Amino acid sequence: MSPKVSSRGRLPGFEVMHILDQVAELRHQGIEVISLCVGEPAQGAPTPVRRRAAEMQSDGTDLGYGATLGSPALRAGLVEHYQRRYDLQVSPVDVTIHTGASGALTTCFLAAFDPGDRVALARPGYPAYRNMLTAVGCEVVEIPCGPRERFQPSLDAIRATHADAPLAGLLVASPANPTGTMYTTEEFAAIAQWCQEAGVRLISDEIYHGITFDGRFGDCAWTYNRDAVVVSSFSKLFGMTGWRLGWALVPPDLRPSVHGLTSNLALCAPTTAQEAALAAFTDESLAEADAAVRAFAEARDVVLSRLGRLGWSSVAPADGAFYFWAEPPLGPHADTRAWCAALLDEQRVAVTPGIDFDDVEGHRFIRISLAAGAEAVGRALDRIEEFQSGF
Amino acid sequence: MSPKVSSRGRLPGFEVMHILDQVAELRHQGIEVISLCVGEPAQGAPTPVRRRAAEMQSDGTDLGYGATLGSPALRAGLVEHYQRRYDLQVSPVDVTIHTGASGALTTCFLAAFDPGDRVALARPGYPAYRNMLTAVGCEVVEIPCGPRERFQPSLDAIRATHADAPLAGLLVASPANPTGTMYTTEEFAAIAQWCQEAGVRLISDEIYHGITFDGRFGDCAWTYNRDAVVVSSFSKLFGMTGWRLGWALVPPDLRPSVHGLTSNLALCAPTTAQEAALAAFTDESLAEADAAVRAFAEARDVVLSRLGRLGWSSVAPADGAFYFWAEPPLGPHADTRAWCAALLDEQRVAVTPGIDFDDVEGHRFIRISLAAGAEAVGRALDRIEEFQSGF
Repeated sequence: MSPKVSSRGRLPGFEVMHILDQVAELRHQGIEVISLCVGEPAQGAPTPVRRRAAEMQSDGTDLGYGATLGSPALRAGLVEHYQRRYDLQVSPVDVTIHTGASGALTTCFLAAFDPGDRVALARPGYPAYRNMLTAVGCEVVEIPCGPRERFQPSLDAIRATHADAPLAGLLVASPANPTGTMYTTEEFAAIAQWCQEAGVRLISDEIYHGITFDGRFGDCAWTYNRDAVVVSSFSKLFGMTGWRLGWALVPPDLRPSVHGLTSNLALCAPTTAQEAALAAFTDESLAEADAAVRAFAEARDVVLSRLGRLGWSSVAPADGAFYFWAEPPLGPHADTRAWCAALLDEQRVAVTPGIDFDDVEGHRFIRISLAAGAEAVGRALDRIEEFQSGF
Repeated sequence: MSPKVSSRGRLPGFEVMHILDQVAELRHQGIEVISLCVGEPAQGAPTPVRRRAAEMQSDGTDLGYGATLGSPALRAGLVEHYQRRYDLQVSPVDVTIHTGASGALTTCFLAAFDPGDRVALARPGYPAYRNMLTAVGCEVVEIPCGPRERFQPSLDAIRATHADAPLAGLLVASPANPTGTMYTTEEFAAIAQWCQEAGVRLISDEIYHGITFDGRFGDCAWTYNRDAVVVSSFSKLFGMTGWRLGWALVPPDLRPSVHGLTSNLALCAPTTAQEAALAAFTDESLAEADAAVRAFAEARDVVLSRLGRLGWSSVAPADGAFYFWAEPPLGPHADTRAWCAALLDEQRVAVTPGIDFDDVEGHRFIRISLAAGAEAVGRALDRIEEFQSGF
């Protein structure tokens, strides 16, 4: 007799996986491919972070299991980070350390929401949000957002969604994946305050903070709403994706649950990474992070300068993160899935089909990543122009 | 208006946390405490693993995000591990890499079970099993086990539980935490085969394999039942707790869900750890692991030789892991929670109250860990004898 397989575990796959498999196969054959698919900075961890980790390994420091909610030193380091970057007073007990922003989100979703609870988010959006929420039994309420609202749900749209049927939560990301757009500070503040008044738990994914092109570091939800959960990570600004180290600001009412869930579901975040990450806040590391952001900005300028020639529409110029979301001319192709497959086949350029981020309108969109740098992005756009000229 | 807090996130706390807080406070005051609470080996990662990690950090190798289900090299290394240790043929696609056994268990619970599904396990047992299952909405069915069945659920008891109301799953651990007991190979095989016939998903936590005192490395569920999920980790035998690296053998029917859940909830396991862990399978690392097991065996002999003098009953001599589960004379104390508090207060010895592992009978039991080594365990037992002589 066959044992059972759960229903909730059957999450949709990602179209980009097919593209990535093909990229790997082509490269394996020695064929050069420019990939604008990746969602991670190329530079890796800052030098002082790697140096500290190497020291620990060499001198035999193995910290073993760490404190459930994170090392006191790293929590204190993040308290300073919020003071310096946001002029925000938080206490070490507000900060919890998790296995990536992924670990923080899963834990906080379980702490905040029960099965059946309605949680709203933007469409297009990072697909793991809706898949994580689905896996833990929440009802995902997508708020469709177009270029007119710069792909971020407006307060009016959020209010209307809540009026339809009460929301338990609202998830926002500013800058967002896949669009790179940000709320204005005024919009963000108004939404955060409305959530507090309405008793809707705000989950603010601030993982792209610091990777911004308009002078702001990012708007922190706790500036406006201390009932919010703020999630962030060392992965993007500090290039530490494979280290799996994230954090959250957790309001007092959720703290006992976050503690209990973490001690049972995760035990603790990686401990060498926690110790080494302290070196991310040194001047040398911050200079390296700033250099990476300048490289993203250059790549962004390359795209912006060529939008006219590319004939891409529905673009909201990215304010941050390292993505562009655009509607290219489809030519003979039925959708961007076919478009991306043909582009890879003809020009050896990989971009991500939009369907992964928006299963309603995404078939008309692509996401390109700026992480490969201005030079590679420029060469990729040359090839894309040639590809489109054949339409 | 206050936002909501979930019901499912409200998991019970652990009594041992109070003890650990007191230990930290006493040590902070400069007072020497012998702690037999810890669930981790003292030696840390094998030297070749640390060396490889140091090299990677020094030469600037930052792998970034890794493959969702783990690096091909590590999956291949584990294929060899199953060949060498269990004479078992598995394929790289059977092996998935996770963020600790904790990550593997959470993922596989979500993949295998829906809310309301009944999953049976032993009482006493590792408390995170029931708390993880509760957090993901499963109905936990505890099978009470005493010293007569060496704290492992018998096939008869499992059958009877399934006859009451069908089980979707059965979770076993051999060796087990907190008792260290193992099934005989015959019992284990019979249970694994019964699960397959009955369509009950077997989850076999094999994290303590290799830390055994009877000559067996451990019995792998896949030897008898390829529908089972096998979970293990580098944390115990290889002392890599803080690295957060575990794995699973996943049957084909669960693979798509495990892939989808991992790519959405975790992205990947820590990548430097995955690369460094390859060095765990070298002769030098294996020799270090064997030396650690010999040290646990010495500590176990110290306890066994003194059981008569200690007057502890209901003991099933640990076959593996590094724990002893025993019923001490309570003297004037109402339960082992009070007993443990008094022991720490009077003799500066910390042991774990049994209530954390068994909320029905555990108030009469304690768990002691052998991880501190024979000398420390011996000194602790001297103090415990003195403590008990005051009754």
